[in-house]
Amino acid sequence: MNHYPSTVLNLIRQIAKLPGIGEKTAERLAMHILRSPRSEAEALAKSIAQVKDRTRLCSRCFCLSDDEVCAICNHPGRNRRLLCVVEQPADMVAIEKAGAFNGVYHVLQGVLSPMDGVGPDQIRFRELVQRMVDGGIEEVVIATGTGVEGEATAAYIAEQLSGRPVRVTRIASGVPIGGDLKFVDQITLKRAMEKRHAV
Amino acid sequence: MNHYPSTVLNLIRQIAKLPGIGEKTAERLAMHILRSPRSEAEALAKSIAQVKDRTRLCSRCFCLSDDEVCAICNHPGRNRRLLCVVEQPADMVAIEKAGAFNGVYHVLQGVLSPMDGVGPDQIRFRELVQRMVDGGIEEVVIATGTGVEGEATAAYIAEQLSGRPVRVTRIASGVPIGGDLKFVDQITLKRAMEKRHAV
Repeated sequence: MNHYPSTVLNLIRQIAKLPGIGEKTAERLAMHILRSPRSEAEALAKSIAQVKDRTRLCSRCFCLSDDEVCAICNHPGRNRRLLCVVEQPADMVAIEKAGAFNGVYHVLQGVLSPMDGVGPDQIRFRELVQRMVDGGIEEVVIATGTGVEGEATAAYIAEQLSGRPVRVTRIASGVPIGGDLKFVDQITLKRAMEKRHAV
Repeated sequence: MNHYPSTVLNLIRQIAKLPGIGEKTAERLAMHILRSPRSEAEALAKSIAQVKDRTRLCSRCFCLSDDEVCAICNHPGRNRRLLCVVEQPADMVAIEKAGAFNGVYHVLQGVLSPMDGVGPDQIRFRELVQRMVDGGIEEVVIATGTGVEGEATAAYIAEQLSGRPVRVTRIASGVPIGGDLKFVDQITLKRAMEKRHAV
């Protein structure tokens, strides 16, 4: 590594800090950047700087936004009585891509994790409660992850909202579509069996 | 993808242009950059910009350098009579890491590839010949790759230098060390057999 000049070494080290990027890949990407046209490298550097400068959280749902209020919250065609709670902006994007939801979102920006010192005050839970207080919401679909922390967060939210005049639901979990049963993990299969429904 | 705000979308697109980085990975890296401290994102952006501004090719060997002449060409302990010819700066770094070479280098910055319109004038071949003319070099070790183009380039260089008072050698090719013979490809095994030597 120290056979590269300092600027190149610095670039390799910065790239290697990214998650899932090892030293070899960082070296390969740095070499690509060195060989690529100046305009392309500048566009990449600028996009990284800009994303930190210009991207903020929507003041209503806390998803990523260029503006004070995001495009979904502002969209006249969305059903504002239906609210989907997710952990991260990427989860919201995944649901949008699936195209099966026409309500609005609430991005917690995290998940309850007492071991890591993350309680309700460290995520956007108060803001969720405030939206309930503000009213107008008929159903809250909790779409946090189906791991231990996502489930615990879902249970906590369901419990906290139980006294309010709002229907609280959870996205279904079970066998993924298109999957072969023998490749599905045991916990998922167990859940799918427990949640079986009449056809 | 178009569910992200434009700045985030722009970052994902810029990252996805890097080789070996698909859309999913680009999305994941962009989310990491968004979540990481501002100082870290700025350091990454700066290192990309700087590498284009400050890195140049060593005027003597054409490897990557911060200065007019690189650290290896300037090092008093290197054997200037021994010259190793490689395709790319990364090849030089690989040989340096192996620690088995104490001479100096000549980086061709490419490989002969008539199909892609790359002839001797498109790589640093003239500069190699000029170094022969300047004199003081006793041996040229050709360490271009062992693929078709690397071999053709090696053969071309060997032929062009044949009239000069310099010993021209080629790095050995054969079975990699630590490899199981049954996992070695046929061409390598054939070469290893042809180049067998007395023990």
